[in-house]
Parts: sequence; structure tokens; C-alpha cells
Amino acid sequence: MTDWRTWGSEQLTTIAQEKQAAYDEYKSRKLKLDMSRGKPCPEQLDLSGGMLDVLKPGGRLTTEDGTDTRNYGGLDGIPEAKRLFADILEVKPEEVIIGGSSSLTMMHDTIARAMLHGVYGSPAPWAKLPKVKFLCPSPGYDRHFAICELFGIEMIIVDMLPDGPDMDQVEKLAAEDEAIKGIWCVPKYSNPDGITYSDEVVDRLAGMSAKAADFRIFWDNAYAVHHLTDTPDRLKPMLAACKAAGHPDRVFLFSSTSKISFSGAGVAAMAASAANISFIRRQLSVQTIGPDKLNQLRHVRFFGGMDGIRSHMAKHADILRPKFDAVLGLLASELGDTGIASWNEPNGGYFISLNTLDGCAKEVVAMAAEAGVTLTQAGATFPYGTDPRDRNIRIAPSYPSPEELQAAIRVLILCVQIVSARKLLSAREA
Amino acid sequence: MTDWRTWGSEQLTTIAQEKQAAYDEYKSRKLKLDMSRGKPCPEQLDLSGGMLDVLKPGGRLTTEDGTDTRNYGGLDGIPEAKRLFADILEVKPEEVIIGGSSSLTMMHDTIARAMLHGVYGSPAPWAKLPKVKFLCPSPGYDRHFAICELFGIEMIIVDMLPDGPDMDQVEKLAAEDEAIKGIWCVPKYSNPDGITYSDEVVDRLAGMSAKAADFRIFWDNAYAVHHLTDTPDRLKPMLAACKAAGHPDRVFLFSSTSKISFSGAGVAAMAASAANISFIRRQLSVQTIGPDKLNQLRHVRFFGGMDGIRSHMAKHADILRPKFDAVLGLLASELGDTGIASWNEPNGGYFISLNTLDGCAKEVVAMAAEAGVTLTQAGATFPYGTDPRDRNIRIAPSYPSPEELQAAIRVLILCVQIVSARKLLSAREA
Repeated sequence: MTDWRTWGSEQLTTIAQEKQAAYDEYKSRKLKLDMSRGKPCPEQLDLSGGMLDVLKPGGRLTTEDGTDTRNYGGLDGIPEAKRLFADILEVKPEEVIIGGSSSLTMMHDTIARAMLHGVYGSPAPWAKLPKVKFLCPSPGYDRHFAICELFGIEMIIVDMLPDGPDMDQVEKLAAEDEAIKGIWCVPKYSNPDGITYSDEVVDRLAGMSAKAADFRIFWDNAYAVHHLTDTPDRLKPMLAACKAAGHPDRVFLFSSTSKISFSGAGVAAMAASAANISFIRRQLSVQTIGPDKLNQLRHVRFFGGMDGIRSHMAKHADILRPKFDAVLGLLASELGDTGIASWNEPNGGYFISLNTLDGCAKEVVAMAAEAGVTLTQAGATFPYGTDPRDRNIRIAPSYPSPEELQAAIRVLILCVQIVSARKLLSAREA
Repeated sequence: MTDWRTWGSEQLTTIAQEKQAAYDEYKSRKLKLDMSRGKPCPEQLDLSGGMLDVLKPGGRLTTEDGTDTRNYGGLDGIPEAKRLFADILEVKPEEVIIGGSSSLTMMHDTIARAMLHGVYGSPAPWAKLPKVKFLCPSPGYDRHFAICELFGIEMIIVDMLPDGPDMDQVEKLAAEDEAIKGIWCVPKYSNPDGITYSDEVVDRLAGMSAKAADFRIFWDNAYAVHHLTDTPDRLKPMLAACKAAGHPDRVFLFSSTSKISFSGAGVAAMAASAANISFIRRQLSVQTIGPDKLNQLRHVRFFGGMDGIRSHMAKHADILRPKFDAVLGLLASELGDTGIASWNEPNGGYFISLNTLDGCAKEVVAMAAEAGVTLTQAGATFPYGTDPRDRNIRIAPSYPSPEELQAAIRVLILCVQIVSARKLLSAREA
């Protein structure tokens, strides 16, 4: 196979017809495959089965400081859970606030509090300002963008480079515009690119000048321990970097066990400087008497500590790696030299990010849907659901069975080929 | 014993000295008793022990509609949990939203959403208005008042009468002042009075005119099934009353299993009209992927349905009733005819509300604390922590052991007697 972009009209017409026939055959099978969200598969969830009854009636249900986990109290988590998340987020236990089961909720609530009350050091609640803007490295996580939309926060796209957001853009924008109050980051095995920020990017984010005194980095370290290979990426610890750069209050870190234990029934946490934590605790104490301590205890009893987490994550990787390999193998063999698509090969996380020729993604996703393969909506990885180049497609290989995955990816590839060939053809004709 | 208010100075001096001696004896014992919060005791928490391992590894973890409770999905709860709370709140399952473990959080978040986005039918987000006010029947629940304070909502005290809030006051205020956007109600076994609203109060709340088109009743039915006697109070269902009165969107109902299963690790829920629910769901879908479904499943598997809840609550009552009886017995024998205190005899809930002579509550609570007995802070049952008559003391008998409770109540009674005698004496002298 050679670069399709060099082909003549005849070659392109032939391949388009050939691929269309293959596509029609798949379509006739009436597939029903969903690759739209990064959901663990049942086999992954089974790995945590033992957690369900790790706490026994009549067993010890107190924390190491003697708190009865069945009763009220404990605003921000049990000591054991704080220690576990301190290890995951590479901070100190006293810099951790344990939440309920969702780090997304903690992020939403952090923004909601900022809108209503400001963050530590804010001159005013953000909702009182004429305009609030966030930097959104893109492609990125659609649910981050949805939070901004809900609160009327204007989103500014920043390009993703192979080592993280384009820091020249970030530095320029943050230094110039006081309305820019924050930036969304998925710094490790990023959603969807699978990129891990380089040390330089971490240091520049920590050290840069920001016009807004209360600028905040929303550091969604969702995939902190979610390695797929034996050569995991290493992310420079952000809170330490911010402290070293003289901006200790700049970052809010988030993580959860949603893709370690149970999705939607895990434990979530955030971390930040002592000043931030103390500011947040005051507001939290009105919102809640405290998060579910029994579920925290379940988690620490089941995992023990970081060693337990690491060996558990290796089991996840054993299930996920063949799925990622299957996708990457098919992409390489079918699209490898064609020049009509490019993608990442992540060392961890939940996604493969596929870029088509400009202007093809929406049509590819629509065509796949017609054949029963549901992908994340094209554009969803960009603010306001609009991919300026209409080329990014997020592939979530975790949930389908290997057989389903094969079929789904073959359909996706056929759609990319057909739409690309047509695109190139119409360019020839124009 | 006769009415102390009729006594002369000599009698009052003698009794004050006598009680002071008894108090000093207790003080020397260095007690450390906490009756400040309505916490279940360990024996009550043991009742739900079987819930801890009701879900088994390898067991059925799907809902009746086939949802895997371990994975993402289900914004507002599993069908079984909605049905259970529909029974508790006397609404339809489709009128229920299941939350995390805390109904307090659902109330806080409902107000936060109202501030930022308004409620269904709001002309503007509440935070955009020059002033927002809430009616606060008092004595009431301090955490409701804390939410208002956090959001800068002005609180207006409404008197509590034996059948609920003084509806003449409520109707007049709500009809006249557009800034009044809501009212806090604990309609059954109220905190702290233990009062259940009469049908007339329910109907007047549902039917009254409100100047604010988006006026809302926050109906915190925390003690819906928390009976202490065989003659439980009956509360007229509020959502039905609102619908009948032509104000279907007026009420938000809340409840939780915090004092049914585990405090802080239960399941919370809210209910409202279809229009309210649909409005809230849109915002919730940005805040969360969905609440902990495993914990919902644990609850419905353990309790079955309303019959299971009822028999479970009878076991709670068996533990709580002797404690309430002990408190009420001591109050009657020691303060019965003295005219220096009055209190309620609730048929359910978690509190006994004690009223002293005007101007005594703070001193009584401080004096009890000096003897090692921690009570809810005097004034806490009123907005801004200030009881205008300084007379209300909330007694939470659930947590202490029967022996601790005896000692604590004896200390409390001594403090009431000493402070009252001094008060009456200083009135004689003035």
C-alpha cells in the first residue's frame, strides 16, 4: 500500500468501491457495538469482586484512629484512604480530601464553589465577573468541557503537542488575559491522546506568569496508575513543581478508583496546598457531613497500599493490552502507509486517538453508526463539540470483547477508507 | 414540688445550693459525654451488619433492568432504589432522583444550582437577584441554616406551633415578599421539636399564594419512617397536596437511609414533579455520571421493600425508646411541676426539645459542658445561631449508653435547676 494522497482518480474510485462492498457486508450483519465511552469490561470489574465482602458483619469496622466507619463524622476521609491517594497523587496525606465516588463531581463542585465563592485568594466570586475563560488543551475530555458550558465559562482551545499542551500558547494567553482563570489537564495518558506531559511542560505550567491571581490548574490525573506496558510513562509531580516554582496554590489535583475498582462505586479524591484545602474544607462542611467511609475502608482493606494497587493494575493491563494491541495492529496493517490517518500508541490510559484527513471525522462516525458501531461523537473531544479540523475520533477499546472489537475496528477502518477516498476524489474533481 | 416561679428568695437560695452541691459531685467525676448530634449508637448500626456482605463476589450484581451496578451509567439511580424511596416519600418512582450517601448534600446542591441557574420556572438565577430570603421555622435544623448562611440567603424566623410552622406568618410573608424563595421544613418528627405537621399545615403550605413564582418548599423528610411508638404520626403526602392545590412544582422532597442503615454510608434521594426532575437531571448530568449503584443494590437486597424497612425500623425503636423514656422520665420527675422548663414527647425522630425559662439556655449548656456533658450549642436550632429567647436546648438521646444517658440528663437537669433558681433570684432582687 502506498500513500493514497498520491493516487489518481481511477485508483481511488476502485478502492472506494472495494471498501464499500466490504462495508455493506458488515452492515448486513446488523452489528450493535458500543465504543463510545471508556468503560471497563466485566472481566476487569471481576478483578475487584473480593472487595464486595471484604468487610464482614461483626468484623472490625473502625479506622486506624478508632473512627467507626458506619457512623457520622470525618469531613474529608479516613486516614488510610488519604494515605493511599497521597501515594497515587504524590502529595502528602494532609493535602488530600477524599470525596464520594466521583472525581468528576469533585471537579464540578470545585468550579461551582469558585463561581459562588471564589477560590482561595480570589478577589471576587467568579460568577460576579463579566467573563470567565478556561484554557482547554484539545482534543480533551468532553465532560470537562461540559462543566465549562454549564457555568458559561468561555473555552479557548490550546493545541496538544506530543509532550502536552502547546506551552507557548498557554503562557501567552495566561499572561495576557485576566479573565483566564484556569486550564484543564489530563496530564498522564491523556484523554484521548494517551500523551503524558513532559517535565518541561509540568515546570512551565507550574512556573508561568498568570494575569489572574487566582488562576488554577485542574489536574485530572485520572490515569495515574493505569499503565498498559512494562515501560510506563513517568509524570513529574505537579504539586511539588508548583511549590518549587513559588505557586503552591496554583493546582487542584483529582483522581479516583473508578477504573481501578468499580466505575461509579469507587472512591474519588482531590489534593491541593494546605491553604486551598483549608479554604475548601470550610465550604465542604456545609455541603456534607462526610463521604462514605465504609467504601473507603473497603478499598484500603482490599488494596492494602500502593503495592496492592500496582499488582491490581497489572491485572487490568493483562486484559486491556491485547485489546489495544488488536486495534493498533489493525490500524497499522490497514492504514499504516496510506497517509489518510494517524494515531498514537499510548503506554496507558483508556483511549486511542485517531486523526483522519481534515473534514472526515463526522462522516466516518456517522457511517460507522449506520453499520451499528457507536463511537464517541465526532467533535466531542473539543470545546462546544466542534473539532475545527473535523478529524479527531476517540477509540475506547476497553469494553467490547476481543471479537466485537475486531469487527468494530474493521468497520471503522472501512469507513475511514471510504470517506477518505471520496474526499480525495472530490478534491481531484474540484 | 411546686412551681418555682412562686417561690421566695429563701427557698430559691436553698434549692440552688442543694443542686450546686449535686452538680459539683458530678463535676468531680470528670464525665465525658457527647449528646450534641443525632447519631445512631453502635447497637443500631449493628442492625444493618448483614448489609455489608449481602453482595457476593460472583453473585448477581445486575439490577432488574439488567444494568451492571459495578460499571458506569444510570444518572439518577437504579429502578429498585427509586421504587423504595418512592414508597418512603409517597411519590411515584419516576419522581425520584437517587443521590450519593447524603441528603444534606442534595439539599446543598439544590440550593447551589438554584443560585447559579435558578430552579424550573425561575425568571433568573437566584445569585443574580439583589436579595434572596428563606423562611426558617424555628427551632429547626442547624445544617439547613448553615446552607443559607453559606449562600448569603437571609433567614426569617417563623415560630413553630404544635402542629407545624405558624401558617399565618408563613402565608403573610410569602404572599408579600418576592425575595422569599423558599422555606425549610422537617415535617415529620421535626428536628428538634419532634412535631409532625398537621394536614391543615400541609394543605396551607401547598395551596398558599407566593409572590415569588419560583418559591420552593424544601421538605426534609429525614424521619419519615423513624417511629418510636406503636401510635406513629401520619404526615399528609406533600407532593400530592401540591399537585391537588395546583402547585405541582412547589416542593423538593428529601430523605435518606442515614438513620436506617449506616450514617454517612447510606443512600439519599430527592423527589419532585416531573418538570422539576427533568430540569435537575440536565444539570446533574454534568456533575456526575451517576451515584454509587452498588450501595443502592446493597440496600434494596438487604431491605427488600417497605415491609423490610418497617420491621427494621421497629428494631431501631426497640433500642431508642428506652433512651427516650429515660430522658422523659427524668425530666418529668425532676422538672415536672417546676414551671422552669417544658418539652415535647415525640412519637419518633431523634430529638427532645427542651425549653428553659427565657435567657437560660446558653448558661445551662455552658455549665453542662464544664461538667463534661456536651450538648448541641445553645442557639444552634435558630438561624445565625441566635435563639431570640435563649431558651431552646436540643437533646439527642440516641448515641450514649443508658448509663451515660442517665448521668448526662441528671447533669443537664441540675444545670437547668441551678441557672433557673439564680435567674428567679436575680429577678426578685431587681
